[in-house]
Amino acid sequence: MRRWNGWGEDSDDYALGDDARAFLKDRVGAGTAPRDAVLQQVLEALPASRLPSGAPFETEARLRVLHARGQSFPDWVALRSGRVGPCADGVALPSSHDEAAQALASARRLGALVVPYGGGTSVVGHLAVPPVDRPVVNISLERMNRLLSVDDKAWLASFGAGTPGPQVEAQLRSHGFMLGHFPQSYPYSTVGGWVVTRSSGQQSLRYGRIEQMFASGRLATPRGQWSVGGVPASSAGPDLREIVLGSEGRVGLLTEVSMRLRRLPEEESFHGVFFPDWASAVDAVRAMVQADLPLSMLRLSNEIETETQLRLAGHPQMIRWLQRYLGMRGIDRGQCMLMLAVTGTLAECRRTRRDALAIAKRHRGVHVGKGMGKTWARNRFRGPLLRNALWELGYAADTVETCVNWPAATGLMRAIEQAAHDAMAAENERIHAFTHLSHVYRQGCSIYSTFVFRSAGDPDANLERWRKLKSRVSEAIVAHGGTISHQHGVGVDHAPYLPAEKGALGMDLLRAVARELDPDGIMNPGKLFS
Amino acid sequence: MRRWNGWGEDSDDYALGDDARAFLKDRVGAGTAPRDAVLQQVLEALPASRLPSGAPFETEARLRVLHARGQSFPDWVALRSGRVGPCADGVALPSSHDEAAQALASARRLGALVVPYGGGTSVVGHLAVPPVDRPVVNISLERMNRLLSVDDKAWLASFGAGTPGPQVEAQLRSHGFMLGHFPQSYPYSTVGGWVVTRSSGQQSLRYGRIEQMFASGRLATPRGQWSVGGVPASSAGPDLREIVLGSEGRVGLLTEVSMRLRRLPEEESFHGVFFPDWASAVDAVRAMVQADLPLSMLRLSNEIETETQLRLAGHPQMIRWLQRYLGMRGIDRGQCMLMLAVTGTLAECRRTRRDALAIAKRHRGVHVGKGMGKTWARNRFRGPLLRNALWELGYAADTVETCVNWPAATGLMRAIEQAAHDAMAAENERIHAFTHLSHVYRQGCSIYSTFVFRSAGDPDANLERWRKLKSRVSEAIVAHGGTISHQHGVGVDHAPYLPAEKGALGMDLLRAVARELDPDGIMNPGKLFS
Repeated sequence: MRRWNGWGEDSDDYALGDDARAFLKDRVGAGTAPRDAVLQQVLEALPASRLPSGAPFETEARLRVLHARGQSFPDWVALRSGRVGPCADGVALPSSHDEAAQALASARRLGALVVPYGGGTSVVGHLAVPPVDRPVVNISLERMNRLLSVDDKAWLASFGAGTPGPQVEAQLRSHGFMLGHFPQSYPYSTVGGWVVTRSSGQQSLRYGRIEQMFASGRLATPRGQWSVGGVPASSAGPDLREIVLGSEGRVGLLTEVSMRLRRLPEEESFHGVFFPDWASAVDAVRAMVQADLPLSMLRLSNEIETETQLRLAGHPQMIRWLQRYLGMRGIDRGQCMLMLAVTGTLAECRRTRRDALAIAKRHRGVHVGKGMGKTWARNRFRGPLLRNALWELGYAADTVETCVNWPAATGLMRAIEQAAHDAMAAENERIHAFTHLSHVYRQGCSIYSTFVFRSAGDPDANLERWRKLKSRVSEAIVAHGGTISHQHGVGVDHAPYLPAEKGALGMDLLRAVARELDPDGIMNPGKLFS
Repeated sequence: MRRWNGWGEDSDDYALGDDARAFLKDRVGAGTAPRDAVLQQVLEALPASRLPSGAPFETEARLRVLHARGQSFPDWVALRSGRVGPCADGVALPSSHDEAAQALASARRLGALVVPYGGGTSVVGHLAVPPVDRPVVNISLERMNRLLSVDDKAWLASFGAGTPGPQVEAQLRSHGFMLGHFPQSYPYSTVGGWVVTRSSGQQSLRYGRIEQMFASGRLATPRGQWSVGGVPASSAGPDLREIVLGSEGRVGLLTEVSMRLRRLPEEESFHGVFFPDWASAVDAVRAMVQADLPLSMLRLSNEIETETQLRLAGHPQMIRWLQRYLGMRGIDRGQCMLMLAVTGTLAECRRTRRDALAIAKRHRGVHVGKGMGKTWARNRFRGPLLRNALWELGYAADTVETCVNWPAATGLMRAIEQAAHDAMAAENERIHAFTHLSHVYRQGCSIYSTFVFRSAGDPDANLERWRKLKSRVSEAIVAHGGTISHQHGVGVDHAPYLPAEKGALGMDLLRAVARELDPDGIMNPGKLFS
């Protein structure tokens, strides 16, 4: 069973050994185990639904609570403390576009606001229920989880928008196809959710961002059905797919999507490469992407993340051997780990691996073989489980991510970590901040930072600590010209920073677009803009 | 000097030999040389400018006429017949963003409508001046033709939006970079024009469409300056670059653009491959693009275009030798020519060429070497000159293009040619219709058809003939689910067919977007939608 107040299945834990615990204590101090609420308390405290009886929405308390929150920091504090806050008054679970459209029509008739629900994995508050004096409903697409059709000549497949990652790939595999979208939320996040939040997967270098995969979509809007896209490319005016991408529920419910597919590759391997310092490593990565090597992933950890990953891995003896080997090759303190992946035909993989490792070598990188890559790939979706383990030891964790052009990349990375330290210094606390570049482009890269700090215990104090951190870090991102999000979206947490990026006219445009399809403003209010 | 009523420089002709003339006569009948108007007549007949004296616009007759029209069929008929129709009352020629913004502000103060002008190469009526009882001005960006900055780490360059193709590439070359956008209009069309019409170049397979190249832009809008884009990728809401792309002047004047660059390749070669029939050829092309071969171009002519190109080439002796060779290889009537290009490092080119030719061979394709490819590449921008030569022999020519998924491609191609024949049959005339696939995607391809028919002599009859053709063909495109344009844009000629593609809600959205930035509707009215 999926955890109601954390990440992953109840049965699945991320074990932190003594060495890892010592490392954390050394970096941020000793944590104090929290006293979390239990689900039963939360259910008992839930206010009654404000929907009239007979309204076509499920109103069972458990269902309402399980759809109330995502995975943002405020979501975690709410669920762990039992102060869940506003919940929808009812949940619709349509099984088809028509049922979804009916649910939306019912919501309108009832004067209810609508918060669409996909996989519940948002980390920026896309699911936040506004505290209003009118009913709110969730329309969850979780039952729309099937492959609807495959076109094996145009390499397209259509899906119910609520299909989660593993079901996307499993249903395609029997047709010899794959999509190739692997965000860390993959076990639960859905194909429709990826589209409306402009998601990016770990192997975007090969498979592209969701924008490149999304061929067409069908929406239920307050003004009726709307379809976008369908052809490979067009010059017939602005591309309306791009309005749906990143719309975060503001223009309607995305119910069905058609996605561009790839054939299953013959081979795939992941490789660890260590560099003596950050400057060499980032130069190597830029050289690889600007040489158009057909790699499927380049993921470069900075010094602190490299050390952290090795210390938390739980294999101290192996790490000592690794360090002995790297030491002989001139790689010591300040080392940075690159994880690279090659995917394709056997010949392509052999060639690409050779070309990439040659570039790495020119930048003093040392290939440590496939073993470390295999481990990384096996655990690629387990990272978020660490958050549970940390929480139970009294530590809070959050992440931010951005994207910027190459000349600004290192400066912004340092500024993000510094802003985090400054924010916590104001709290008289330490923070452990570490970063990797997760997606690379010829023009620049994304920057993904993780923060670990001690929980404050009291939920208000915890939220206050986080708010200082989030605002300082977000201001640093904006000041350096980074986007406020490269892959997580805007939700409510990033909404204050969106105008810096879109400009006043751009914000007016976004509002005009939403107003046109949702004149009464019932669709996911407060997300993207208020 | 550039032709005022046709394509290209006055000094540059496309010679049609006896064999070519015989071929045309055989296909559509003998043409009658037209009696075209001369510029002086047109200038003398031009109504006086309605701008008040002292308005900051050039009102010289010659300048106004030279900005009045593009290269659409109605544009040609207007210029050749001397019935130029509505002209702008004045032309602004700003040299900077600020001057462009001032010109726009002046237009607003004067109550004038604004028709932006780039390279004057539109083939769908983007430059049409509406016949209204108020002044109209052109704001031409032709003086904004310079490289403004290069970022050699992020591989970006910014340009004045009026920079034409050859100046884009020449200015980049000294920095070791290139853009790689080669539409057939390349000698005159501008980087800003490419963006606002969603252009695609001949080597889009390597370099991408203009959407992929356009990093950021600066616009002067009736509501003030607006900037879009800037980072490599973002999930911060809808991508507003995509509103500018294809906006066709409706949201403001695009004055400066930043484009994503590529390094100059080590090598490039073009290769002709002949297939025995269309079915084999199209299967081969689809196999190549779905195998992710890093080709830079795949351009497949159908049977009729293949024959036409060979007959118009003007080297009958060489063609006979070619046919003898192809005949020995089992390729005879029904043959289809594929032009493919490989671009990149020496090693990449060698490998890609080998892989592509292996796929061709599996589909019974015969490589005829680089000679034919060299000729094609040398003449790649000369195609439009043929229109002058045809016109002077009494023939009219026009093109349409679309894009569709693979399963519909052949059916739509046949339907387009059939619709053209049907339209002309109603006129009791013959038409020579031929087609190539010019851009290919894993999902599908673009389809580009050319029509040659006899000029009707009288401009009204000529237009009527074309209108029947254009509407029948456009209806066939819409009926088969093709986009109304893959690379030429919408302008006025395609506007009636846009709602079929965007839907009623989509059209409302486009109008809402334009209204938001241009509340008084002064920007290029009638284009995209009325």
